[in-house]
Amino acid sequence: MSIVFSSSATKFSSLFPTYRQTSPCRRIGSWSLKSRTQLCKNSLQSQIYTNHNFPRIASTSTGPIPPAHLIQVATTAAQTGAQVVMDAVNKPRNITYKGLTDLVTETDKMSEAAILEVVKKNFEDHLILGEEGGIIGEVASDYLWCIDPLDGTTNFAHGYPSFAVSVGVLYRGKPTAATVVEFVGGPMCWNTRIFTATAGGGAFCNGQRIQVSATNEVERSLLVTGFGYDHDEAWATNIDLFKEFTDVSRGVRRLGAAAVDMCHVALGIVEAYWEYRLKPWDMAAGVLMVEEAGGTVSRMDGGKFCVFDRSVLVSNGVLHGKLLERIGPATEKLKSNGIDFSLWYKPEDYTADV
Amino acid sequence: MSIVFSSSATKFSSLFPTYRQTSPCRRIGSWSLKSRTQLCKNSLQSQIYTNHNFPRIASTSTGPIPPAHLIQVATTAAQTGAQVVMDAVNKPRNITYKGLTDLVTETDKMSEAAILEVVKKNFEDHLILGEEGGIIGEVASDYLWCIDPLDGTTNFAHGYPSFAVSVGVLYRGKPTAATVVEFVGGPMCWNTRIFTATAGGGAFCNGQRIQVSATNEVERSLLVTGFGYDHDEAWATNIDLFKEFTDVSRGVRRLGAAAVDMCHVALGIVEAYWEYRLKPWDMAAGVLMVEEAGGTVSRMDGGKFCVFDRSVLVSNGVLHGKLLERIGPATEKLKSNGIDFSLWYKPEDYTADV
Repeated sequence: MSIVFSSSATKFSSLFPTYRQTSPCRRIGSWSLKSRTQLCKNSLQSQIYTNHNFPRIASTSTGPIPPAHLIQVATTAAQTGAQVVMDAVNKPRNITYKGLTDLVTETDKMSEAAILEVVKKNFEDHLILGEEGGIIGEVASDYLWCIDPLDGTTNFAHGYPSFAVSVGVLYRGKPTAATVVEFVGGPMCWNTRIFTATAGGGAFCNGQRIQVSATNEVERSLLVTGFGYDHDEAWATNIDLFKEFTDVSRGVRRLGAAAVDMCHVALGIVEAYWEYRLKPWDMAAGVLMVEEAGGTVSRMDGGKFCVFDRSVLVSNGVLHGKLLERIGPATEKLKSNGIDFSLWYKPEDYTADV
Repeated sequence: MSIVFSSSATKFSSLFPTYRQTSPCRRIGSWSLKSRTQLCKNSLQSQIYTNHNFPRIASTSTGPIPPAHLIQVATTAAQTGAQVVMDAVNKPRNITYKGLTDLVTETDKMSEAAILEVVKKNFEDHLILGEEGGIIGEVASDYLWCIDPLDGTTNFAHGYPSFAVSVGVLYRGKPTAATVVEFVGGPMCWNTRIFTATAGGGAFCNGQRIQVSATNEVERSLLVTGFGYDHDEAWATNIDLFKEFTDVSRGVRRLGAAAVDMCHVALGIVEAYWEYRLKPWDMAAGVLMVEEAGGTVSRMDGGKFCVFDRSVLVSNGVLHGKLLERIGPATEKLKSNGIDFSLWYKPEDYTADV
């Protein structure tokens, strides 16, 4: 058993350097441009991202455990945690702080304990990474459970929708099963909605198959983003992206729960979501939901995503390249300024094909 | 009957000019400050806003019509519109555009028609201002119904919560009765929550009395704002405010439906909401809800608000002055740069005690 996080693992090389140097300026980018120089630069970026075939990030299978069994345990675990949250939803919260504005409540801890009990009872040899409790279990396992017992704690503390319980299962480092229980409504009308997905088996909401939207124009898109607790250069860059996309799209929503935002992309009610510095427990379930609903997942520099990455862009697929025309260069700039985008929270010695 | 909007009415003079010149620097502002000069400036602003007693913006009564009768008709009207919206919520939308990103659907128009029928049947001599249909009725009436048949049309078009039907009634220009039907949840779990308020009679959600939160620190607050369709200097200023408050609070949400955001302040799940350039139908119901739930309403320069104003800040009251320390000066700067904050959408010849 290991309790050490590796945050200095593989650095990915820059994307398509050769392509960048040789590609001619033929196409016009999606937005109005101010000069011929900018035209060339943007059309180049457009080509780079829109012509790129973003690879699947999910596992090709659920491994030796059948999908039906894995998703049944994941869903039972998530529902058990959700029951703890629902019991607490109208009661006063006992809030403590990880940082000035990074809350944690007793409910986070109780929900995680309830979820862990279900997972351990069913798969005693699996590895588990919980937001509150860190790593437990067998590091030799091919399965890693990434658990956020209460995604959107700030919203929960205020009674503001939405928040969620998120359970994502990795097989050799890649997402293979996922359940998210979303809390909707608010005081006087709390309710839940359950999202599930398995690798290759599709995504579902309350048992009905779901798919991403078909919107192919940024101008017709509704987008979502998030801002973490670390208010550094990456945070400021995303404020700029928020402004740029608020300017050119139908709007950028800011709801405050990553798993929920990604499920909303999978459900087709928003076109895309991005954020820097999420943790594996924030992303493991949501990214599978989007991909299984027909969407695309990548890093914010356009590179191949894994759940130990420090940036994520999920979209309906058809908009992915167009969004990266702005998000990609902004992220490349952060990289060139030395902002750390190495993998993090990857349990040392856990085998991951990423 | 008049169909002319007055958008060049009274300009308000600057706030507290004498107080500003004579007040000593004694207090320290709520945020960390960088220099002695800034300390003095901010503490001065702090004093200006926190010591100010913000006046009530609601009517002192519902006039000759009893509150119970007025709110019953307002609620019936809003529920009738909400039924039209609920019938359409899972169907494809027929979208047209007022601007590049300013949508309108058939549902907006059908909901307004249904609402108008209820109002006209009950009060044939009242004046009505609808988002879609403009002014109808008797301009000599003391009552003006401000109707948003579908607040948050973009969200509705995407199936994204939240949106609402908002019915606010003015008596001689001041809010006196309000009903907002909020749509929550989303695909697979649509639901509604009904907010009501009358002048002096309190605010209610699903029949239960509600009140604003007691949070008195910006650092412990959850805030909400919105960005309109006109992307000019005021829009850019609010992006800056979004950034500043995201930095110092628990977060700034961006949900996309003004009436809903204001009801959330009244419900106590967020501490404050502000926006430039809302229309009377966006605000008439929401501001009464907040004030009747114990909160405070003002313009974004701290001045006395009326529903024909081009900026609004609603809060739980205890935070109002602290928020204005940042929002006030930013708004004063817009005014000094010539941005138009004169009254708008006030029906000409309608008698308003504002």
